Amino acid sequence: MEVITTRALKERLAELQGQEVCLQGWIRNHRKQKNMGFIDFYDGTCFKNPQVVYDSGIEDFAAVSALHVGAAITVRGRVVPSYKDPTTPEVQASAIVLEGDCPEDYPLQPKRHSVEFLREIAYLRPRTRLFQAVFRIRSVASMAIHTYFQDRGYLYVHTPLITANDAEGAGNTFTVTTLPPEKQGKEPDFFGKPTSLAVTGQLEAETFAMAFSKVYTFGPTFRAENSNTKTHAAEFWMIEPEVAFCDIHQLMDIEEEFLKFIVQTVLEKCPDELAFLDKFTGGGLLDKLQQLLATPKAARVTHEEAITILREVKDRFQFEPRYGEDTAKEHEKYLTEEYFHGPVFVYNWPRDIKAFYMYQNDDGKTVAAVDLLVPGAGELMGGSQRETRYDLLVKRMDELHISREAMSWYVNLRRFGGCTHSGFGMGFERLLIYLTGVDNIRDVIPYARTPMNCEF
Amino acid sequence: MEVITTRALKERLAELQGQEVCLQGWIRNHRKQKNMGFIDFYDGTCFKNPQVVYDSGIEDFAAVSALHVGAAITVRGRVVPSYKDPTTPEVQASAIVLEGDCPEDYPLQPKRHSVEFLREIAYLRPRTRLFQAVFRIRSVASMAIHTYFQDRGYLYVHTPLITANDAEGAGNTFTVTTLPPEKQGKEPDFFGKPTSLAVTGQLEAETFAMAFSKVYTFGPTFRAENSNTKTHAAEFWMIEPEVAFCDIHQLMDIEEEFLKFIVQTVLEKCPDELAFLDKFTGGGLLDKLQQLLATPKAARVTHEEAITILREVKDRFQFEPRYGEDTAKEHEKYLTEEYFHGPVFVYNWPRDIKAFYMYQNDDGKTVAAVDLLVPGAGELMGGSQRETRYDLLVKRMDELHISREAMSWYVNLRRFGGCTHSGFGMGFERLLIYLTGVDNIRDVIPYARTPMNCEF
Repeated sequence: MEVITTRALKERLAELQGQEVCLQGWIRNHRKQKNMGFIDFYDGTCFKNPQVVYDSGIEDFAAVSALHVGAAITVRGRVVPSYKDPTTPEVQASAIVLEGDCPEDYPLQPKRHSVEFLREIAYLRPRTRLFQAVFRIRSVASMAIHTYFQDRGYLYVHTPLITANDAEGAGNTFTVTTLPPEKQGKEPDFFGKPTSLAVTGQLEAETFAMAFSKVYTFGPTFRAENSNTKTHAAEFWMIEPEVAFCDIHQLMDIEEEFLKFIVQTVLEKCPDELAFLDKFTGGGLLDKLQQLLATPKAARVTHEEAITILREVKDRFQFEPRYGEDTAKEHEKYLTEEYFHGPVFVYNWPRDIKAFYMYQNDDGKTVAAVDLLVPGAGELMGGSQRETRYDLLVKRMDELHISREAMSWYVNLRRFGGCTHSGFGMGFERLLIYLTGVDNIRDVIPYARTPMNCEF
Repeated sequence: MEVITTRALKERLAELQGQEVCLQGWIRNHRKQKNMGFIDFYDGTCFKNPQVVYDSGIEDFAAVSALHVGAAITVRGRVVPSYKDPTTPEVQASAIVLEGDCPEDYPLQPKRHSVEFLREIAYLRPRTRLFQAVFRIRSVASMAIHTYFQDRGYLYVHTPLITANDAEGAGNTFTVTTLPPEKQGKEPDFFGKPTSLAVTGQLEAETFAMAFSKVYTFGPTFRAENSNTKTHAAEFWMIEPEVAFCDIHQLMDIEEEFLKFIVQTVLEKCPDELAFLDKFTGGGLLDKLQQLLATPKAARVTHEEAITILREVKDRFQFEPRYGEDTAKEHEKYLTEEYFHGPVFVYNWPRDIKAFYMYQNDDGKTVAAVDLLVPGAGELMGGSQRETRYDLLVKRMDELHISREAMSWYVNLRRFGGCTHSGFGMGFERLLIYLTGVDNIRDVIPYARTPMNCEF
């Protein structure tokens, strides 16, 4: 008999009623009565798990009754109508074979565990319902991202992780070396020069956008920031599309369509996971996602307009909103959750707080940068129209002491058939916080890397 | 007028005949005659590029005639029948606007450049026909991989890149640190312990396979091997599926179906790119790929059988094939290209040359490892059934001086509901060498990282 997955069982439930099936997976919970037993069975392919029922007529009833939580088993039996809930498959087992036992000191006993405890056993937590939901959504959202871009002709480009650039001009990078400490800086290293882990793939993505028009990256990036917050990890995944012949307003159109496509896909493919997370995180998640799709067009305000809105609020903020300065988390929260009740694009940011490669607006003060703020996760995407005018770009680089020589390939893009182009970056874990309602980055990434923490 | 891509133009060519269109992209070649001109135009979305024709009736004929190779332009014009080839779109331009100029010293003049020269200008080479073909196939193959797994219920898992494990027991890793040399080993580093870049995500993927049954990774991996060959890079992308309740023979079924799916997809989606590469690489590429699909089932031989086949060949090999030892590249080449004329699985390898986590066969000499060898690229996939018996696993780890304590989470997978499971790894660039016929890894990856080379 062919083994079927619990996903196939659920999808073909009507057709399989009364049929013999074979399942392989694990015991999440096992309730025993005198002459029968109930096994919460899962194989991880489907969030809606079947119940396996057996009675004393099963082969070796005593051994089956003794099966431990966590054990791997093969189940043969007949699909029967569920008296619990018609959408939950039920299997009346004729035989249950132990594939791999699990001792009674197994840490994942069927009770509620704290997320903090589960982080300590991160290699087991994917077996829990919470992480089955989160990591399935992670996978489905990844695929939605690829599908969005590939269906629209974008080229997926793998930008390098080890780099000799310091793209953002920031110092918070991890050094990569093969030399022992005493030889570093004295002997030639593996690449013949100092190297670090990339904080972005944008600049290399731009080189591909100038050849393929529409490209995107989706890969890991690294920040050696020594901050222990809920939203910072040293290693995280990022998506960075870059589009030729595209200005900042067209970029906002793409960002919005892209986000809605992901949300739509996850709502369609993970309804059970989202229903669970909606409850788990206290409600409001599904409403938030559905409301996004119902919004014809997200609000768009300039940074100046946003500050004006914020300055009208009295006695509220710890940090005073100021023209020409960055916004704080509390400001972003107010704008999305209280003022606009949904996502908002804030564009035309003060030049001095933004990166060198952004298009300098005619006002001499702002750049064509845009942040997309969303309820619950704050800044979800950050993008800009790129500075394509050679003279203005190198002048800005000089001002910021960024080497023209080291970056000659990048500035040359402006000499060799340059064109108006724009791109944005989205932190994938930030997206997952938005999609799942789970508020700690450590709980949306398989094995989080944070200061003083590199387990598994 | 809405801008359309050259891909849309090609796909809707019949419908668009006689219509006005607007295109944005670049000049690959510009041939001028007294009263007319021809522009080889591309925007990178389609390998089959349209020809743009103009005559002296165009707005500002003198300026248009003076346009340089490499310049970015906007073209407005009417789609007309091509007198060159009916599948090549042709546009009779009514206006051509310069978006970004390109000087006459532009390195990519329309002539044949060596791949070595193009590596030096790797940021421009995506604009050439060769690299438009290679990188489009890279993107399409990436998507085929995701599609294969997602359609079959696999979970995509992002395993960590920064690790404190030394999974293969090999020493060739890059150190990751935030400390200056004089403090390394003396003060606590960012993660509080020595860390390096991962050479595999397999072990972490196994933890997810024990929760989701079927999982895969697709991400970068790193080897600090100081070897300057055509097939080694320090940073490359790898795909590592891991499947619960799967033995080595089922694994081979998956590997073969997976490879055929990718080849089929690339043949369908990139016919023009493959036709170009077939010519560029001297012929035989398309035949090889089509022959793979025509083969009902790839050959499967044990390592012992393979050695017997090889030992029957006289006066041929530099290295003598030996039972109990690894095979050399020349042996693999003979098996795939001359003996089997196609892919071949070689399984049950000598235990002593394989990794600690592989299932130990009853013969006491071999493990249930399998390599998939293919014509033109050698070993394409390496996999195994995993050792699931706790005692045998830890005994093998002890023999190889791999710390049980450091890897307790991994060995615990055998205590907590373990089951027969198997997985394989495929180097993505190795796949691309197979798919494109391009034989140097430096030419199938956007920005190659090799010893003494970390440009862009």
